[in-house]
Amino acid sequence: MTAVLRILGLDPGLRTTGWGVIDSEGSRLRHVAHGTVQTKADQSDSQRLAALHGGLADVIAQWTPHSVAIEKTFVNKDPASALRLGQARGVVLLAPALAQLEVAEYAPNLVKKSIVGNGHATKEQISTMIGVLLPNTKVKGFDAADALAIAICHAHHAASVPGRQKNASHTEDRARA
Amino acid sequence: MTAVLRILGLDPGLRTTGWGVIDSEGSRLRHVAHGTVQTKADQSDSQRLAALHGGLADVIAQWTPHSVAIEKTFVNKDPASALRLGQARGVVLLAPALAQLEVAEYAPNLVKKSIVGNGHATKEQISTMIGVLLPNTKVKGFDAADALAIAICHAHHAASVPGRQKNASHTEDRARA
Repeated sequence: MTAVLRILGLDPGLRTTGWGVIDSEGSRLRHVAHGTVQTKADQSDSQRLAALHGGLADVIAQWTPHSVAIEKTFVNKDPASALRLGQARGVVLLAPALAQLEVAEYAPNLVKKSIVGNGHATKEQISTMIGVLLPNTKVKGFDAADALAIAICHAHHAASVPGRQKNASHTEDRARA
Repeated sequence: MTAVLRILGLDPGLRTTGWGVIDSEGSRLRHVAHGTVQTKADQSDSQRLAALHGGLADVIAQWTPHSVAIEKTFVNKDPASALRLGQARGVVLLAPALAQLEVAEYAPNLVKKSIVGNGHATKEQISTMIGVLLPNTKVKGFDAADALAIAICHAHHAASVPGRQKNASHTEDRARA
């Protein structure tokens, strides 16, 4: 019997944070749920961060992942945008930590390569391949599709660690992050 | 009788976040408490953010401020540093929001001008003036001194809003932020 590893993938943003949950069992992947946490532009930053935090805490409580994965942010933006994205990313990193979950981080081109076999895949290609890798899954919008892609990337890499124990993924995630 | 406004000032950083609490009563200021929340460099970012979050939640629960102030970050760093600072800042902004407190933001040169009368004051000058503005206060380290400076700046500006009601500062803070 192979243990099931439930993985939550997260694609952070202040306006929209995508999330996707999959179950990984041996080489099999199964879609569990996906969605977005959105915040209102007319609220203050701290209120929006509180809304984001509450939404993610709900997702973690409802879907009880064993493991969480997030994309390493590729910072090619101006410092002011990087600061704002960082604020959302800090809150996204916090939610799993408060639930005693480690967070694995993967470079964007590794995520794309895991899904499409090409580190420079487009969002459309990612979205299409999600429907192939997770049969019968229709994903609305790129944010949740990206989050599912990150979860799938984690499933591939977590499974490829030699001698990996399904219930001891946290230590390994951390070593890799 | 003048109501007392208790203000928490925060100076965010992943390694060290300074905090300072003062009471403002009319034109009088009184030092209440100050300190730092520190995180360990050998932990993962998400664990450090969780430690920062826990430390700030404790400060807010213990000192029950009515109002919170933070410095607007002047982003002259590279995008990667801005992203990391942003992650800490997001968690610092979150803590007051979860306690239903609004966060006022002030530009660094306004904070310096409020304390020293000069927008380009040094950290040493800030630290010295804290001891003058808050008699009998000896502050260790610049992080907590900066946090007290931000709280004092908020006291000056909150008090200068015409028709300000001491117990209705939240709306005004928000309009100014």
